[in-house]
Amino acid sequence: MPGAERYREFRPIDLTDRTWPGRCIRKAPRWLSTDLRDGNQSLARPMSPERKLAMFELLVRMGYREIEVGFPVASQDDRDFLRLLIEQDRIPDDVRITVLTQAREELIRDTLDMLKGAPRALVHIYNATSPLFRRLVFDIDRDGCRDLAVRATQVMMDHAERVLGDCDLGYQYSPELFNETEPDFSLEVCEAVMDAWQPEAGRGIILNFPTTVERSLPNVFADQIEWLDRNLSRREHVCLSIHPHNDRGTGVASAELALLAGAERIEGCLFGNGERAGNVCLVTLGMNMYVQGVDPGIDFSDIGAVRRTVELCNQLPVHPRHPYGGDLVYTAFSGSHQDAIKKGFDERERRSAATGTPVDELPWEMPYLPVDPRDVGRTYEAVVRVNSQSGKGGVAYVMSAWHGLNLPRGLQADLASRVQAQADASGGELSPERIGALFREEYLYHGDPSRPLPLSREPVEVTLHIDGGAEPGAAGAGDLAPVLGPWGIRVLAVHTTEPPLHDTHLEREPPGGRSPGEVVIYAECAAGGGTSWGAGVHADVAASAFSAVRAALRTRPAARPAPSPLPLPRPLAAAG
Amino acid sequence: MPGAERYREFRPIDLTDRTWPGRCIRKAPRWLSTDLRDGNQSLARPMSPERKLAMFELLVRMGYREIEVGFPVASQDDRDFLRLLIEQDRIPDDVRITVLTQAREELIRDTLDMLKGAPRALVHIYNATSPLFRRLVFDIDRDGCRDLAVRATQVMMDHAERVLGDCDLGYQYSPELFNETEPDFSLEVCEAVMDAWQPEAGRGIILNFPTTVERSLPNVFADQIEWLDRNLSRREHVCLSIHPHNDRGTGVASAELALLAGAERIEGCLFGNGERAGNVCLVTLGMNMYVQGVDPGIDFSDIGAVRRTVELCNQLPVHPRHPYGGDLVYTAFSGSHQDAIKKGFDERERRSAATGTPVDELPWEMPYLPVDPRDVGRTYEAVVRVNSQSGKGGVAYVMSAWHGLNLPRGLQADLASRVQAQADASGGELSPERIGALFREEYLYHGDPSRPLPLSREPVEVTLHIDGGAEPGAAGAGDLAPVLGPWGIRVLAVHTTEPPLHDTHLEREPPGGRSPGEVVIYAECAAGGGTSWGAGVHADVAASAFSAVRAALRTRPAARPAPSPLPLPRPLAAAG
Repeated sequence: MPGAERYREFRPIDLTDRTWPGRCIRKAPRWLSTDLRDGNQSLARPMSPERKLAMFELLVRMGYREIEVGFPVASQDDRDFLRLLIEQDRIPDDVRITVLTQAREELIRDTLDMLKGAPRALVHIYNATSPLFRRLVFDIDRDGCRDLAVRATQVMMDHAERVLGDCDLGYQYSPELFNETEPDFSLEVCEAVMDAWQPEAGRGIILNFPTTVERSLPNVFADQIEWLDRNLSRREHVCLSIHPHNDRGTGVASAELALLAGAERIEGCLFGNGERAGNVCLVTLGMNMYVQGVDPGIDFSDIGAVRRTVELCNQLPVHPRHPYGGDLVYTAFSGSHQDAIKKGFDERERRSAATGTPVDELPWEMPYLPVDPRDVGRTYEAVVRVNSQSGKGGVAYVMSAWHGLNLPRGLQADLASRVQAQADASGGELSPERIGALFREEYLYHGDPSRPLPLSREPVEVTLHIDGGAEPGAAGAGDLAPVLGPWGIRVLAVHTTEPPLHDTHLEREPPGGRSPGEVVIYAECAAGGGTSWGAGVHADVAASAFSAVRAALRTRPAARPAPSPLPLPRPLAAAG
Repeated sequence: MPGAERYREFRPIDLTDRTWPGRCIRKAPRWLSTDLRDGNQSLARPMSPERKLAMFELLVRMGYREIEVGFPVASQDDRDFLRLLIEQDRIPDDVRITVLTQAREELIRDTLDMLKGAPRALVHIYNATSPLFRRLVFDIDRDGCRDLAVRATQVMMDHAERVLGDCDLGYQYSPELFNETEPDFSLEVCEAVMDAWQPEAGRGIILNFPTTVERSLPNVFADQIEWLDRNLSRREHVCLSIHPHNDRGTGVASAELALLAGAERIEGCLFGNGERAGNVCLVTLGMNMYVQGVDPGIDFSDIGAVRRTVELCNQLPVHPRHPYGGDLVYTAFSGSHQDAIKKGFDERERRSAATGTPVDELPWEMPYLPVDPRDVGRTYEAVVRVNSQSGKGGVAYVMSAWHGLNLPRGLQADLASRVQAQADASGGELSPERIGALFREEYLYHGDPSRPLPLSREPVEVTLHIDGGAEPGAAGAGDLAPVLGPWGIRVLAVHTTEPPLHDTHLEREPPGGRSPGEVVIYAECAAGGGTSWGAGVHADVAASAFSAVRAALRTRPAARPAPSPLPLPRPLAAAG
């Protein structure tokens, strides 16, 4: 692609003795939500006061304790909202609101004036420190840029003493474009700001380092943060904060590697809203910790409700593939994935039975599902969806979870091939209801079960499978063999299928299953070199077996896929 | 959030002497698109043959030379599509198609049979190697798992010799769930597979390492890859490939750090389609290289067309905040961002004029825009959009780029405060057309320009600003002072505003600007302690000045924001 020569490689920091790649994240950082500031300023239609309030209350409920509520000198809306929070006394005691302002004296004074009456707050002052911005936007040198930050800090301190005497006021300073600033200059500015603020015990400072525009690989950002972590003075009084954007699609990684490198606080937005490609996503970061056993201190247990509120406030959708929040992320369409997931659920049942531990308390170890959907308020119902890419595992899961029927393996494959042929033909997804209807059409006998069977012209060898959901001991080969024998049918064996999944998979009773007291029997009939299947559902064991055999005898063998219009070399193997 | 204790920390590999964090990406890897396989199998509605073909042709046009076209033994659709490509001779000479199959003998034979007639192809065999899958899904030990891969390789070689004698057949093996497999066991399996395949010059092997489910921080994955890179034998005949998923939202970072660690090939999907949270996004990876000066070898110069085709094929949207492809990523709403971008464009003009380099060939160095929108087929028109968060920079940009009017600084601020008041009141975005209409309403005199001015009751001091778009030397203070003097108006100075932006910013002529030959003059009138603005647009310089002053004298001072319903401490400062 021509044109690449007009761009330059990002110059990494020289830090050969970095230690962050050997560390792990074992503790949640402090979080700041900037949904109401950086998120809001990136919207074509900024939030109305009602939406701002809905967002604020959501953030409080979820557990965010530091919330940037606006840039009040830049927008009347932001200013009104700030006053509303203060005057209607809507800020909980353990929440600190933050307001942003540029490092300009009159704006700082105005900002502080607007905080009057707030019991707790934090002023966040920034100025751009990168060479490009010093030259292009501000036309100042390094000294001028540093002095601007220092003067802003002093003005803030003076004015706050005058107008906010009774406010517990915190201070945060950000060298904007930190990642594009010479590291020694970022440090110089921060040290000068600290000289003015004089941090000490009980009077810390937040130094916040934004990748205002994400420009480098995340490891380069981590090096920058580790270098700062080592070189900042008064380190015990500094909260080292980061504010990653996502212009390279590596905002989450930048935040995580920076945590390894010494960052203690992260600023971001729910579902990654924010300027351009967004701020770093607080949902992904929090859940990434959760699934490695670290409590993020934030409540994602109803992620659907969080998502709905955020979509309403931002008027932007959450993508179906958003990790943890998307519609498709707890779903498997592929046959081999479905098969493995079904085995995973089965094993949980067995382990629970063997150890006496309730299923919900077992460690989560599941193929293809990094998080238990129930932990974020989703059910298991959408885990497995069936289309032309699916195989017997998915079909078996659907029959068990939705319809309470636990098919033997051979019947799973037989039904799956019929399902796949339908999915191929329609090009789409088959709903659990449609799969249930297909099962009923193909495998149930709908006539009078008491009618005697026709005498078989050739020997029929039947294996009966009693659905695992039946009462134990409801029937045995001994009961059924004499019933069927007179018609030339030899019962080879009677099995019980695996126990049902639906007790743990579904919130509610399976809609398509049997009534209490009914016994489901599957008949596998081998005759004339082929095998066909049927099922019977009755309160009486013999009637069930009877119906199942009758249905099997009239069932067509599973449909092979329709011949392709192209000359194809060999018949298609079973889906994996 | 309770429940975290049910999850375990991902155990990193022990590699203290890693070298990847000190390296840079200076060369594009080999790319494989799996849009038609992993991408397709993750869709609720898999692609129809027409959509598959559209995707295939898009991939070829963009420059992908390795394309996974399906999992033919798992789906009739995939099989039909493979045969269609071969029999209709649709595979360009420099493209190699890949087909996936599980490591099962009959499936491998079927897969090879389906490749008959292909001049070039690659068979991609996989089996799951992680401890969980060995135990839960396959019930085999390490030896059994390794032997399965070896046997699959042998069966493939034998059968290929029999049925694909005239096909240039490549081989790729993947230990599925690589990232969750013991590193020494992944290595053992790969070495055993290589013992069977016997790689040598001209007969390489692709060993592909998937994070089938992304489980760890990206640096941990990089360590795994660097360890492999060091320990694989026959390294010169191995192409070390990776296949990252995105379950933690760090797929792009995992791929990039793995490249540093020795990976040579990446498998992914356009815009990050794929199972659950998707495969790694090939668009983001490619463009991330491009904006650091590395040609990805893939053509993204019409990213809008790529996106439309992908959305059509997948029936999934690209998110507005997708890096490089989203609707909102080349847009700034915030006032300070807009101001910096305007300065950036202005400087490009100056540098181009000073150096004689065409603007389009200058290095791209622009506040808040990591990539030149034109490089990906987008225009500058959407760069700056105006709402209540915007300031004078954005308004000035719109007036210049859309309307061809280059407002002096004071008039920018005056107009911006009117725009902001309207945006605050309406809660939404103001279109360039609406801003132009507002300008005309507020600052133009719509009466007869030849009517004499009313005599001023108090002294009026006027500064005139001639729009930079006028012919140089069209007017001077000397021409205008006598014209206005008789009415008690003192012309303090005549300036020329900065040169217009629209030559480089827009594809087309600004729709709202002046006609050729017209002179635009802005009048800044100070009287009675206030300043008001007007503008005049006429072919005659004096008439323009006349109209501008007349308009200014009747213009209301810029509206202050409507008083808030809440008691507010001080008037609002100008937006930043």
